[in-house]
Amino acid sequence: MTPQSEDFSAWYNELVVRAQLVDRGPVRGTMVIRPYGYRIWELLQADLDRRIKEAGHDNACFPVFIPESYLRREAEHVEGFSPELAVVTHAGGKELEEPLVVRPTSETVIGEYMAKWIDSHRDLPLLLNQWANVVRWELRPRMFLRTTEFLWQEGHTAHIDEADAMRETMWALDTYAAVARELAAMPVVAGEKTAGERFAGAVRTYTIEGMMRDGRALQAGTSHYLGTNFAKAFEIQYQDEEGRLQYAHTTSWGMSTRMIGGVIMTHGDDSGLVLPPRLAPYQVVIVPIGRKEQGEATTAEARRLGAAIKAMGIRVHVDDNRPQLSPGFKFNDWEMRGVPVRLEIGPRDLADGVATLARRLPTVEGQGKETVPLERVPEVLPQILADFQAFLLARAEKFRDDHTRAVDSWDDFGAQVSGGWALAFHCGRTECEDDIKADTAATPRCIPAEGPAEEGVCVKCGRPSPYGKRIIFGKAY
Amino acid sequence: MTPQSEDFSAWYNELVVRAQLVDRGPVRGTMVIRPYGYRIWELLQADLDRRIKEAGHDNACFPVFIPESYLRREAEHVEGFSPELAVVTHAGGKELEEPLVVRPTSETVIGEYMAKWIDSHRDLPLLLNQWANVVRWELRPRMFLRTTEFLWQEGHTAHIDEADAMRETMWALDTYAAVARELAAMPVVAGEKTAGERFAGAVRTYTIEGMMRDGRALQAGTSHYLGTNFAKAFEIQYQDEEGRLQYAHTTSWGMSTRMIGGVIMTHGDDSGLVLPPRLAPYQVVIVPIGRKEQGEATTAEARRLGAAIKAMGIRVHVDDNRPQLSPGFKFNDWEMRGVPVRLEIGPRDLADGVATLARRLPTVEGQGKETVPLERVPEVLPQILADFQAFLLARAEKFRDDHTRAVDSWDDFGAQVSGGWALAFHCGRTECEDDIKADTAATPRCIPAEGPAEEGVCVKCGRPSPYGKRIIFGKAY
Repeated sequence: MTPQSEDFSAWYNELVVRAQLVDRGPVRGTMVIRPYGYRIWELLQADLDRRIKEAGHDNACFPVFIPESYLRREAEHVEGFSPELAVVTHAGGKELEEPLVVRPTSETVIGEYMAKWIDSHRDLPLLLNQWANVVRWELRPRMFLRTTEFLWQEGHTAHIDEADAMRETMWALDTYAAVARELAAMPVVAGEKTAGERFAGAVRTYTIEGMMRDGRALQAGTSHYLGTNFAKAFEIQYQDEEGRLQYAHTTSWGMSTRMIGGVIMTHGDDSGLVLPPRLAPYQVVIVPIGRKEQGEATTAEARRLGAAIKAMGIRVHVDDNRPQLSPGFKFNDWEMRGVPVRLEIGPRDLADGVATLARRLPTVEGQGKETVPLERVPEVLPQILADFQAFLLARAEKFRDDHTRAVDSWDDFGAQVSGGWALAFHCGRTECEDDIKADTAATPRCIPAEGPAEEGVCVKCGRPSPYGKRIIFGKAY
Repeated sequence: MTPQSEDFSAWYNELVVRAQLVDRGPVRGTMVIRPYGYRIWELLQADLDRRIKEAGHDNACFPVFIPESYLRREAEHVEGFSPELAVVTHAGGKELEEPLVVRPTSETVIGEYMAKWIDSHRDLPLLLNQWANVVRWELRPRMFLRTTEFLWQEGHTAHIDEADAMRETMWALDTYAAVARELAAMPVVAGEKTAGERFAGAVRTYTIEGMMRDGRALQAGTSHYLGTNFAKAFEIQYQDEEGRLQYAHTTSWGMSTRMIGGVIMTHGDDSGLVLPPRLAPYQVVIVPIGRKEQGEATTAEARRLGAAIKAMGIRVHVDDNRPQLSPGFKFNDWEMRGVPVRLEIGPRDLADGVATLARRLPTVEGQGKETVPLERVPEVLPQILADFQAFLLARAEKFRDDHTRAVDSWDDFGAQVSGGWALAFHCGRTECEDDIKADTAATPRCIPAEGPAEEGVCVKCGRPSPYGKRIIFGKAY
């Protein structure tokens, strides 16, 4: 496999297939998510869905086909999405009177139904979410990161006023940041997008941005305050307490299978994937070693131990049905597939009543391999997995901080964004953002919510910064 | 609302919208599944997904777009599905070189990848499942029952031989029957389809059929043994233990949002939905009664009781934010929406320390309303809900048996299928099935697995029956 250090892009493209996360689909830019990759999505989905429901949202399901005319009702929205649309023109053996767009996102169709369901201020807030596939025709597809079809959740909510809608927008952003940190061990930066990077039709767009191990940024979730733009396009109105007709303020927010790509590029190394335990399909793999009778004895013990570990609520896999492969091959294989903890049981281990425990990476608490008495294995694993999860987050945080620097000169800027993020002052003009992108391929990732207040002049054009703080620039996926 | 007894079809169409299960989509034949309907699907999905995983299947995700050429590789398959296809001809602002079909089912694309992933007998069985949306252009759409887009799971598996594939086919059928009985309280009949009713491309198709309250049959899940048809079309081959190349035997099986329609039509009545507790979004609703201070006291008690009930793991809703509506309106509303148990707390109840408990239907164990001491409510509910679930199943079973009759004359046949199922001998010829359908609108629903062995002659044409038992005829959804 191409080493990460040599060609990050080739490393990624080879690894996602080799680790059986995904296969190239039959149509350009599409992907087949294989069980090992889909399980990561299911684990993320279960956690995010719980948070969405606990905050009072209801899941629903809107149609995948949207009449083309719906998109045209919001001018910026149609302009933003038109180039990426897939269009159904024939169905049931006939040409359709109106072409149907395969949803690239669902603000329009959901707006149409919000208008139908909302009459009074009592019907607000209306808090909807759906788990769905969406289609955006991509010119430069990349597995998980930019695929023609991807899976996501899209939250769509309607509120009585801007204040309530903004609370919702920030709730979604905070929730995404928490999911990224706590599950994916991705220490994301949350902040607002500049005007040039806003969602088509939004008043304000917020993002979480993670740093990948090549120093590039990955936008890993976005939350939009849509103001009354879609409410006006779709007549989403309510009677207020005085009986006056008012436009609702709406939001939308989404997190997608792109997160899987984020996990791969935040933690992976030359040996392959490194999966955070909370998203690992298998948190622990047990490899029994030995031939014939010895192999039977270690396999029996591996199965017994597997059952004991499973009873602890840990996702464990016993590698007991590939006798044709050598132990060394299996070790490499599970390393490449990113399993956090490997347990080896050889004949000598069995005689000594121990298992050899190998972490995917040495951590602060444990350097590489160690032996653990068999009967203690189930009880020590929860802490080892928790430590490993925490270690990955801390390591990624350090990596990001090591590759982020405040820069004030244009020369420093170019050098910094070649392998990391630049914290710089910017004038806020979209033309200037375009110039920076043309020169360096870097774009403004976000106006970080947590950045300290500072005044300064644009790193590119010298005009004063309107943001009151430095913003983050980096090359992006 | 139109009474069920007066016009079953109008009753259904009005009820699904009124109960907020669904709304008509913007494109003909599509639906918007609203939160109350989607929750039913989520409850069904969670249970079925658990069973699928426990039996060793892995979830995956295949693309929604399938190259048109894939469908053509299996001759019967393309013939069966061609009239129902939606086709993407343009994407990214250009006409596509090859049109893309929006998946009507995924045997073809999954077959392509099975061929890629299977080398050796060690790779078998390959047990895959996906939860997905599929599109079939329907001429006579009906919410949940026949919609242009619907949600389902589709299992796709590959096996070493017919015996193993048939075990899988029957496992899926048994699982569907169990889900229908245990969750939906639908006493389905399981059996094989006749040749004329087989899935396009299958060697054998099995079905579960439920009887709706108008006497019609609903096919509620199907499981197909595909033989080597798709294996040959997509080159799904493996090396056996002797190193010879063999075709795999494949299966596919699906259950869909159609089940929600089955629940509605199996249990509903003139007052509206009747939901089996295991699929009810709200198993219990609490309605506090009273104005001003009295209302505040009963509402406080309702919330306290709601929390205690929720702590029992019961899905409960407190109707505490619609002060503008009368208690009578709320009672009717929750009845119409099929909530199994309603608890009313009025000022007098509160003074007496009781709640009034009303089942959606009188059952064997409880006739209509009764009063229950407030502190005992949480503990009595699990049994009341279990009894209600069992009552619905028993009632549906009795209804089905009361409306099923063995018939041996053509006159009796016509009368019987006008409001129920006929158990009749049939010659097995597809032309004869077509004649019966033309005359009576009835079709063979299945060759029931559990029917007693009997010989006889065709109820329509007098030729001998090849089935060795009576088969079920009925009008179908």
